[in-house]
Amino acid sequence: MTQSRAEFEARLRQIGADRYHDKHPFHDLLHSGGCTPDQVRAWVINRYYYQHAIPMKDAAFMSRVEDPALRRAWRSRIEDHDGHGENEGGIERWLRLADAVGLDRHYVASRQGVLPATKFACDAYVRFVRDKTLLEAVASSLTELFAPKIHANRIEGLLANYDFADDRSLSYFKRRLSEAPKDVAFGLGWVLDHADTQEKQDAAAAALEFKTDVLWAQLDALHSAYIAPARIPPGGWQPGTHMIAVAA
Amino acid sequence: MTQSRAEFEARLRQIGADRYHDKHPFHDLLHSGGCTPDQVRAWVINRYYYQHAIPMKDAAFMSRVEDPALRRAWRSRIEDHDGHGENEGGIERWLRLADAVGLDRHYVASRQGVLPATKFACDAYVRFVRDKTLLEAVASSLTELFAPKIHANRIEGLLANYDFADDRSLSYFKRRLSEAPKDVAFGLGWVLDHADTQEKQDAAAAALEFKTDVLWAQLDALHSAYIAPARIPPGGWQPGTHMIAVAA
Repeated sequence: MTQSRAEFEARLRQIGADRYHDKHPFHDLLHSGGCTPDQVRAWVINRYYYQHAIPMKDAAFMSRVEDPALRRAWRSRIEDHDGHGENEGGIERWLRLADAVGLDRHYVASRQGVLPATKFACDAYVRFVRDKTLLEAVASSLTELFAPKIHANRIEGLLANYDFADDRSLSYFKRRLSEAPKDVAFGLGWVLDHADTQEKQDAAAAALEFKTDVLWAQLDALHSAYIAPARIPPGGWQPGTHMIAVAA
Repeated sequence: MTQSRAEFEARLRQIGADRYHDKHPFHDLLHSGGCTPDQVRAWVINRYYYQHAIPMKDAAFMSRVEDPALRRAWRSRIEDHDGHGENEGGIERWLRLADAVGLDRHYVASRQGVLPATKFACDAYVRFVRDKTLLEAVASSLTELFAPKIHANRIEGLLANYDFADDRSLSYFKRRLSEAPKDVAFGLGWVLDHADTQEKQDAAAAALEFKTDVLWAQLDALHSAYIAPARIPPGGWQPGTHMIAVAA
C-alpha cells in the first residue's frame, strides 16, 4: 500500500538508523583517537576514491535529466566538489587533509594503492546512478540525510585526538556541514514528490539501502586491510610509503 | 618493448604466483579444516553469487563477438555452468554443495544475504567483460590457469576435514578439474596470439590483475564478515538461519 508522505519519509530515515556507516566500528576507532597515523592515512587514501567518484556520479545523473530546472538544481553538487569561483572545491579540500596527514597528495590523487573493494563499491554507485531510474538515482543520494551528524562527530573527535587536525585540514567536513543539508532538502523533497506509488516507494527505499551498502563496504574493506589483524590485499597501499615531510 | 610469446606467458603466470587467491588466509582455513560449519556455509552462499555471475559474464562476452568460430568456442562455458543434455551444469552442482552443508538451496539461489562487497566485485567483473576490449575480456578469464591446483587442494582438504564432503557434494570441483584446463588452453592461446604489441600485452596483464582483485576481494569480504572478530554487514546472512535438516 502506498505510504503517506510522512510515513514514507520515516521509512527512509529508519534505513539510516539501521544501516548508515556511522555504526561501523571503524568510525568509532577513527573518531575516538584509536587509529594509528597509518590507519588514518589509509582512510584518507581510500575515501579519496569515493570523493573522486561523486562528481562523475552527479554528471552521469545530469546526463540523463531532460528538465533544465532539475539539472540546474543538481549542478551545484559538482561545483561543490570540483570548485567554482572562490570555492576551491571538496576534492581540493580533501587533498589538504592528505597533506596534513603527511601523504604525498599526487599519490593520493593518482588513486594508486586504493583497495580494489573500495573501487568496486564506488564504481557500482556511479553505474547505479547511470543505469537506474531517476527516482532511484536521487534516492541513493539521500544518505546525506544522515551525514551532518557524522561530520560533526568527526570534526569534534579528530580535533580532540589527532595532532594533524585543525580548521585547515578539516575544512572538507566543515564545509559539508552547510552543503549537505541544502542538497538533501532538495533531494528528499524530490523523492517524496515523485514516489507516488508503492512500487516507486519500494524502489526508492531499496536504492537508499544500496547506497548504505556502498558506504559500509568501503569501511569493511578498510578495517579488513588495515586494522589488526591486518590483511592488505595485493596492490593495496603499504604503510610508510608515499609520505612527505610534514612541517612541524 | 613487445615481449616474446614465451616471455609474455611467463609474465601472465607470474601474476598468478603473486596475486591469485590461493594465497588468501581464508583458503588456508577452509582447506585445513579450520572453518566452522557456519563459515563454510557463508562461503557457499557468497561464492554462489560468483557462480551465478559467470554465465552472464560469458553471455556478455559472446554478445560482442562477431566471429562465429570464437562464439562457438566460448559457448561451452555457458553450457558447463547452466547445463546441457546429460550435464546438469556447475550451478546445479554448487546447489548440491549447499544441500550438503545444510543450507536451504532456495535461499542460496535467491542470493539474499550475499555480502554487498561480493556483489560489487562480481558485478564489476561482468561489466568489465561487457565494456573492455575482447582481448582484455579473454585475458581476465585466465585466472583459470591457476584454478586446477586450488581445486585439487580443496577436494583433498575438504574430504579430509569435513563430514559433509564426499564425491557428490564436491562434484562441482571434480568437474572443473577437467573443464577449466580445456577452457584456459583456448583462452591462453587466443591471448598470446592477439597481444602482439606492448600496449596490448600491458592491457591483457592489467586485465588479469583486475580479475585476481575480483577473486581476492570476495575472500576479504568473507573473512571480514565471518572470521573472528566477525563483522557481518547489514543484510548479510546470519549464521544459523535458512537451514534445512540434513539426512544423517
